[in-house]
Amino acid sequence: MEAAIFRGPGDVRIETTPDPEIEASTDAVVRITHTAICGSDLWFYRGERDLSEGSPIGHEPMGVVEAVGDDVRHVEPGDRVLAPFSISCGECEFCRKGLYTSCARDLSWGEDGGGAQGEKVRAPYADGTLVRVPDRYANDEDALEALLPLTDVMGTGHHAAVSAGVGAGDTAVVVGDGAVGLCGVLAAQRLGAERIVAMGHHEDRLDIAESFGATEVVSARGEDAIEEARELTAGGANHVLECVGAESSMETAAAVARPGGTIGYVGVPLGVESTGFLGTMFGKNVSLQGGVAPVRAYIDELMADVLQGTLDPSPIFTKTVGLDGVPEGYRAMDEREAVKVMVKLD
Amino acid sequence: MEAAIFRGPGDVRIETTPDPEIEASTDAVVRITHTAICGSDLWFYRGERDLSEGSPIGHEPMGVVEAVGDDVRHVEPGDRVLAPFSISCGECEFCRKGLYTSCARDLSWGEDGGGAQGEKVRAPYADGTLVRVPDRYANDEDALEALLPLTDVMGTGHHAAVSAGVGAGDTAVVVGDGAVGLCGVLAAQRLGAERIVAMGHHEDRLDIAESFGATEVVSARGEDAIEEARELTAGGANHVLECVGAESSMETAAAVARPGGTIGYVGVPLGVESTGFLGTMFGKNVSLQGGVAPVRAYIDELMADVLQGTLDPSPIFTKTVGLDGVPEGYRAMDEREAVKVMVKLD
Repeated sequence: MEAAIFRGPGDVRIETTPDPEIEASTDAVVRITHTAICGSDLWFYRGERDLSEGSPIGHEPMGVVEAVGDDVRHVEPGDRVLAPFSISCGECEFCRKGLYTSCARDLSWGEDGGGAQGEKVRAPYADGTLVRVPDRYANDEDALEALLPLTDVMGTGHHAAVSAGVGAGDTAVVVGDGAVGLCGVLAAQRLGAERIVAMGHHEDRLDIAESFGATEVVSARGEDAIEEARELTAGGANHVLECVGAESSMETAAAVARPGGTIGYVGVPLGVESTGFLGTMFGKNVSLQGGVAPVRAYIDELMADVLQGTLDPSPIFTKTVGLDGVPEGYRAMDEREAVKVMVKLD
Repeated sequence: MEAAIFRGPGDVRIETTPDPEIEASTDAVVRITHTAICGSDLWFYRGERDLSEGSPIGHEPMGVVEAVGDDVRHVEPGDRVLAPFSISCGECEFCRKGLYTSCARDLSWGEDGGGAQGEKVRAPYADGTLVRVPDRYANDEDALEALLPLTDVMGTGHHAAVSAGVGAGDTAVVVGDGAVGLCGVLAAQRLGAERIVAMGHHEDRLDIAESFGATEVVSARGEDAIEEARELTAGGANHVLECVGAESSMETAAAVARPGGTIGYVGVPLGVESTGFLGTMFGKNVSLQGGVAPVRAYIDELMADVLQGTLDPSPIFTKTVGLDGVPEGYRAMDEREAVKVMVKLD
């Protein structure tokens, strides 16, 4: 089969690799029909995170089950399925608690299950990892494209909103206008927030934020942005979604949080070196909740809304490519030409 | 009057200063009968925090009201009172929410109200700041000594336990064996924790922890301590009290927290420079809650337990001095000869 392979920073290629096969009785093999490129894929693309040369890549799979191992019960060949960016057994202490990202099996796409940016992928622990799309929607292209973000960014934005404690009538500030931040706006709106202040630096993305429910946008930078957000919220918001993971975004989140408020953070804190945010939080009893999003826990409720037509995160896909276009997709995301790239296979 | 004055790192003196007077109609003047030296007083004593030379010091006042301004309604001359380490108006948004440390008036003992380590202190916003001891206990020396820690460390340990979400039947780990950590053990036990693992480096303090309800103690250091605590809790505790504020204690707290767990942190994070704890927390969705403790919010319920005889944090006072002995008290705490020093005035 053909699959995207990492050959070094800035170098992603489509190569011929062996077809995946059932290795364990709990495996499934999925023929990929839709997948995506993630902001976190840019870490290795930019050389900010080590990845072995030759690694298969991609962690947002959607497709059709092609084969299953003897012990797989929940899916069968022909089912349309999607899976979160983390593999989960569905049976351990943490999966039972809904904390699927802490699954005791500790497996990852790419390293353990193959990459989702390819024609096929092996899905370990298929019963825990794969989620079936109801047959009625299995070939509804609009529904499938709206469901695809549930594999990662929509669940992650939702985790930020839930972790920040957003509820009906609340005022929320969303820090970051990437795909996760935009999904955070959508999630906050879905959870009933009355005012949503979206903070970012790109007019086109803030336009999407407004279409997703942001009532105000702040496009200034640094101290000016903080001042503007604090003014809009009369001194800070009780609910802040940190959707970047950079040092400046953590500091902004802490600064725009109201005393006693909560930051829901879902941006992997790769670039946070100063602990300034901690002192700010400490002095005003601001809580920090969240972490790597256990999106599997949210797929059922989010899918229900997508299928009933009240949730559609697909506008975050501002560019669509075929498998051959994956290298171009990385380039476009790296250069911020695209918010998020969808990959559609035949 | 006589009062303790800061003259520079390592230099605290008893000097003659003007008697405080009623300056605003909401002030009271309190004659101090009991006060204490706090671990946080050691910051300026050790030169780790700037304080103007000549500053009055101390922030744990207990005494008898001597005079009140015209607008004071809740206390009158002759009342035995105590006050938290933070001054609070009792009327603003944050005081109404119980977040007294974020009082909009933003006043502090020492700078604004005089120091508690002296014969008398002016208490701004007396109605919000002072808490009356019921007349029946106003001259009960045992009760007064058990109530004194409610001005700071007992409320702070309680804030750690509450922020960590400790409840009946829980397993909690308490990081730190200073006065706050010991009070954290007591608070966790009071909240119904079934197992309390106390982590510290001093045998004598860990003995107090055991008398306060710790079911296990860990006295190892660094990685060994983390391994031991994780073994005792089968991989980490859902509730961790961080009662130090150092880089190593934050890292320990993050390491011994179970995925999905919560750290209640109350140690001012003055010495935290590395963000290693953040990555550890992020990967396993550990929440960080707490901050500077709004102890005023807890005094009523804690006082009820002290007065009914079921709560007694006074064993943290391992040394008692008179006002003249305050400089010696600082020395003893700085050299870790005393856990916490009580100051009794005639």
